[in-house]
Amino acid sequence: MSRSYSVKQLAEIVGGSARGDEGVVITGVAEVSAAGPDDAAWVSNPKYAPRLESSRAGVVLVPEDFGPTPMTAILCPRTDRSVARLLGAFASPDARPEPGIHPTTQIHETARIGSDPAIGPHVVIEADARVGDATVIHAGVYIGRGTTVGNDCVIWPNAVIRDGCRVGNRVIIHSNAVIGADGLGFYFDEGAHHKVPHIGGVILEDDVEVGACACVDRAKFGHTVVGRGTKIDNLVQLAHNVRVGEHCVIAAQTGVAGSAHIGDYAVFGGQVGVADNVTIGSRARCAGGMTMVAKDVPDGMTVSGFTAQDHRRELRERAAVRRLPALAEQLKELIARVEQLEASTHHRE
Amino acid sequence: MSRSYSVKQLAEIVGGSARGDEGVVITGVAEVSAAGPDDAAWVSNPKYAPRLESSRAGVVLVPEDFGPTPMTAILCPRTDRSVARLLGAFASPDARPEPGIHPTTQIHETARIGSDPAIGPHVVIEADARVGDATVIHAGVYIGRGTTVGNDCVIWPNAVIRDGCRVGNRVIIHSNAVIGADGLGFYFDEGAHHKVPHIGGVILEDDVEVGACACVDRAKFGHTVVGRGTKIDNLVQLAHNVRVGEHCVIAAQTGVAGSAHIGDYAVFGGQVGVADNVTIGSRARCAGGMTMVAKDVPDGMTVSGFTAQDHRRELRERAAVRRLPALAEQLKELIARVEQLEASTHHRE
Amino acid sequence: MSRSYSVKQLAEIVGGSARGDEGVVITGVAEVSAAGPDDAAWVSNPKYAPRLESSRAGVVLVPEDFGPTPMTAILCPRTDRSVARLLGAFASPDARPEPGIHPTTQIHETARIGSDPAIGPHVVIEADARVGDATVIHAGVYIGRGTTVGNDCVIWPNAVIRDGCRVGNRVIIHSNAVIGADGLGFYFDEGAHHKVPHIGGVILEDDVEVGACACVDRAKFGHTVVGRGTKIDNLVQLAHNVRVGEHCVIAAQTGVAGSAHIGDYAVFGGQVGVADNVTIGSRARCAGGMTMVAKDVPDGMTVSGFTAQDHRRELRERAAVRRLPALAEQLKELIARVEQLEASTHHRE
Repeated sequence: MSRSYSVKQLAEIVGGSARGDEGVVITGVAEVSAAGPDDAAWVSNPKYAPRLESSRAGVVLVPEDFGPTPMTAILCPRTDRSVARLLGAFASPDARPEPGIHPTTQIHETARIGSDPAIGPHVVIEADARVGDATVIHAGVYIGRGTTVGNDCVIWPNAVIRDGCRVGNRVIIHSNAVIGADGLGFYFDEGAHHKVPHIGGVILEDDVEVGACACVDRAKFGHTVVGRGTKIDNLVQLAHNVRVGEHCVIAAQTGVAGSAHIGDYAVFGGQVGVADNVTIGSRARCAGGMTMVAKDVPDGMTVSGFTAQDHRRELRERAAVRRLPALAEQLKELIARVEQLEASTHHRE
Repeated sequence: MSRSYSVKQLAEIVGGSARGDEGVVITGVAEVSAAGPDDAAWVSNPKYAPRLESSRAGVVLVPEDFGPTPMTAILCPRTDRSVARLLGAFASPDARPEPGIHPTTQIHETARIGSDPAIGPHVVIEADARVGDATVIHAGVYIGRGTTVGNDCVIWPNAVIRDGCRVGNRVIIHSNAVIGADGLGFYFDEGAHHKVPHIGGVILEDDVEVGACACVDRAKFGHTVVGRGTKIDNLVQLAHNVRVGEHCVIAAQTGVAGSAHIGDYAVFGGQVGVADNVTIGSRARCAGGMTMVAKDVPDGMTVSGFTAQDHRRELRERAAVRRLPALAEQLKELIARVEQLEASTHHRE
Repeated sequence: MSRSYSVKQLAEIVGGSARGDEGVVITGVAEVSAAGPDDAAWVSNPKYAPRLESSRAGVVLVPEDFGPTPMTAILCPRTDRSVARLLGAFASPDARPEPGIHPTTQIHETARIGSDPAIGPHVVIEADARVGDATVIHAGVYIGRGTTVGNDCVIWPNAVIRDGCRVGNRVIIHSNAVIGADGLGFYFDEGAHHKVPHIGGVILEDDVEVGACACVDRAKFGHTVVGRGTKIDNLVQLAHNVRVGEHCVIAAQTGVAGSAHIGDYAVFGGQVGVADNVTIGSRARCAGGMTMVAKDVPDGMTVSGFTAQDHRRELRERAAVRRLPALAEQLKELIARVEQLEASTHHRE
């Protein structure tokens, strides 16, 4: 974080236009409330504009149509993109092993490593494995027999990619993730469970990211597939033969059971459950917080709740459950009134 | 997958009887819809028979009482068992380290290793540990002080078995699983939590399988026990002093809190929660998808739902919740009608 | 467990007073029902007193106001604290690496290690990292560039602490936990998700404990913070920029989404979900079992249930849901009765 930029330079970097003093020098990034005169901050939503009044930030990134600001501003056509670039401008160079292959690393003689490797200590790369160009492999990583890892990947310490898997280019796998463990498959015979061999593998297509301690199981046969550009968070479970489309986001602790298929651009909040063999459409959204998807979800639908359903219906039902004790009370009163009516009717007859 | 078998050979391997051309040569396994003339496929349920019409599979495994098929068939008394054998016939030989003990591995001088070991690089085996015969220990595994691992086990890369644990024969532990971490136990005194020493261990009996990133905590004293033949999926949590019976199956992301006891042959879907000190009977089934088991479950009962209960009751209640908005509307109308009745009654009085 | 103590000695160790034969020799710890004459057992609650009748325990730890016991007793002002000390008295010495630094361990020349280290095999400590005095680092641990670990910590095998993190004194990190992986942050542009650089780190303050396979993500900028004395169980997810106060307890598989803030002394059961940006007050309690906290929780409140709310209200609602099928039935009957009333009213008119 020892870098510094003028506002003029920063505006270029983040793809915005400066308004105010372009010569202000910025050396860091902070929240609006904590920022000092050397810091850049940002506000994406005009409703938070009042927070700027008491802010000491040297510059603030705001959307193009944002009103006046008490300090120099950078007007951004896409604030989210600009903030990502701002953070990138102040990021330390990536932590990575020394160029080359650490002498403690064990690479089988039949494995092939591309150009410009950066492979840390205590890595194991088994027979017939392939690692592409400029791929970074941190300490303690295991790459199994016959597994292929593409170019420009980053595999963080102690992640495991087992045998017979295919990892594309620019894939990021975080620490202690496990790609290619056996799926849970048994048949029951003579009082015991017997293992079903899992002879398939896992394919992670280009630009996939897999979180820490996430698990993507190998297929019974064929492949478990995570499509191009899909991002998977920590502690997620993708079971055998799951197929996830392209450009999905799956937040932490979500679990997808065997052979479920998920379309492109689907989004999952945290702790969602998807039952086996379910099909979830493209651009579907499953709200976080223990949504359980037990049935197919059509393209573009947003679902939530225990047996996942339309989000608005879910909200209506939850509200109804909240009103249930009152409803039961109402019903009790009503019964009393009807009894009185009946009594007066009988009385008169 | 470069092996090939005639249908005649395959029928023997899978324990079925061929119907049609026994000479067809099969070189792989595929789904019915994707299979080509060299592939074996299978259909377990007659309702999927129509799928065979357009299939190009060379042979299909079906139950014995299955109707006519457009291609050569193998009739199987137990399709699930036959499919497992079919997959086994096309499985690559197990990925495993070279026979012997890798020179980078650190084995304490007081540890004992059985015959025919296959122990990969960067393994650590601590003082007084014992490893049985023909056990496979992959790269980066840690086996703690005084821990015993039986014969014919497979421990996948980077799994951790801490000190003082006992692992039976033919046990499989997947990557990054942790056996024997301390249970969560504290007492609160003078404004802070103080650690309760966990002096017990973990026992995994014969034929147990533990999934990737699953955690089985050590006991406060005595042992946390997983019974013979029980299969535990990825990311499962078994807390201190849990006792799981024999031949259970516990699917991914399920958590069992401290001192819960589970009988034999119980089955848990994914993401189930079991409260501490609960007793779950033998052959009980807890449906997947966020079933929360807060009370004891009798032998043989199937439970599901938030506070787990009888599955049929749960389904009835869920349906009722779905009808709640309509119910509240009905009640509102009813109140209006009763008010009218009351008015007319008062009017006449 | 080869140690032995007289009851007189044990009473001193656990901070209680002996009642009965102080000379009884105790060599182990067991449950009341399983204890033999050489074992210590305990009963915290007078309602379990009858269990002592058939117990063979040599000595029993009980609260000070506990009635007569059939065997020698140690009366304890705080049974929980005394039990912790009892277990400590019979604990094996901590499993830890040999003093010093194992020769297979890779420590960067710019890293600094304090006095009295115990660092096991295959550890990696990157550039500019600092490790305090008397800290134990087990086999296969990774400590990233510029990360600081305090004094008297214990890092169990294969845990990963990435670059730019700060770990206090007396911190315990269990196996395969991951501190400092990137948070899940992307912006969407031209049909794909683009990574938001996470330039912040993680701070674990003094006396924090992090469970096996738990994940604490690094901040987008600034720090994700876990306050002093907080205990985190296995498989917990703390997302980027989460702030957890001091002396909290978070049980297994709980997930806290980005930028949520949690006060001091809060307690979370297992499998709780906390939505992003939520604020949870000090001494709040979130009941285990899939409580989903989607809104702020005031100081001191106990919440439970799907959209977490007051615990008593939750229990009332759950009971109401249980009664729903009966309620719907009641309503149906009521409608019939009102229809009859209406008919008789019309009839008479």
